[in-house]
Amino acid sequence: MKYCSSCGSLVARKKPAGDSRDRWVCDNCNTTHYQNPNIVVGCVPVQEQKILLCRRAIEPRSGFWTVPAGFLELGETIAEGAARETLEEACAMVRVGRLFASVDVVDAGQVHLFFTGELIGGFGVGEETLETALFAESEIPWDEIAFRSGRFALRKYLEDAGRNNGVHLHELRRNRQSND
Amino acid sequence: MKYCSSCGSLVARKKPAGDSRDRWVCDNCNTTHYQNPNIVVGCVPVQEQKILLCRRAIEPRSGFWTVPAGFLELGETIAEGAARETLEEACAMVRVGRLFASVDVVDAGQVHLFFTGELIGGFGVGEETLETALFAESEIPWDEIAFRSGRFALRKYLEDAGRNNGVHLHELRRNRQSND
Repeated sequence: MKYCSSCGSLVARKKPAGDSRDRWVCDNCNTTHYQNPNIVVGCVPVQEQKILLCRRAIEPRSGFWTVPAGFLELGETIAEGAARETLEEACAMVRVGRLFASVDVVDAGQVHLFFTGELIGGFGVGEETLETALFAESEIPWDEIAFRSGRFALRKYLEDAGRNNGVHLHELRRNRQSND
Repeated sequence: MKYCSSCGSLVARKKPAGDSRDRWVCDNCNTTHYQNPNIVVGCVPVQEQKILLCRRAIEPRSGFWTVPAGFLELGETIAEGAARETLEEACAMVRVGRLFASVDVVDAGQVHLFFTGELIGGFGVGEETLETALFAESEIPWDEIAFRSGRFALRKYLEDAGRNNGVHLHELRRNRQSND
């Protein structure tokens, strides 16, 4: 950030009165520009105990498999966002179920929230997807899963085996090795 | 948003290629400025079955009671954010427990995430707080609770009565009447 999005003046990094952190502040129009983490919402769409995965057609991780997920938009609930992403990426309708995993992707400034999902009808291939397919547990291509957050969600989904064990929390940081 | 925060040029509202929504786009430096919901994190801090509430010293809802909660910051996990807010507002340390409530405050562009919390030691009065106090279930000032999301969290916390029932989802919109 270099310019104030309200008035176009140069912004400066400083601590506003009463704040404990440096922010981007405009001295011309006195606007403080907060920057906060974003939410990614996704789901694990299931049909007859098989999980629908999408092979990504775009970067990052093009060619790798993922559960449907993407940035939450203004004007929708987290469950609506998870359903919309599934529709966009896999042309599939889902009945969104429980929120069962939350992954802090701290260095990216993101929180990834994952729901269970029940596929309603068929599926296809969205614009950002190369192919979609249903996988039984033993068929999941663990070495070709695009993101660690999605891999965590898949693993916890299978461990839960339909039980409501609440939300599995997980933290990912770029500079830490992880078995996820 | 009126000016590009990267180059200072005027931005325009338009649909970027491959996108399904209008965004703020800078034609000069080709930056798309996404706007997405923010995360509020809070917790229900408990000591000997009493709940710690804070009476707000600031707007909105100054003078009303709330569970400790506030905007998630970059660089922290959602659990760390809930603990930090409790420290800032109630000068209290908590052992953060389960994520048990998620409230979509759609028209505000916010998602509120609530954890259980176990108070460790004492508490005090933070800068944005008038007073803090412990309340037994029968003592909670339901008519003086600041926000509907916090009221939902308190109610579900008490209904759960220590059981892990997963995450209670709730949606709040400005133009809908609600009993929460």
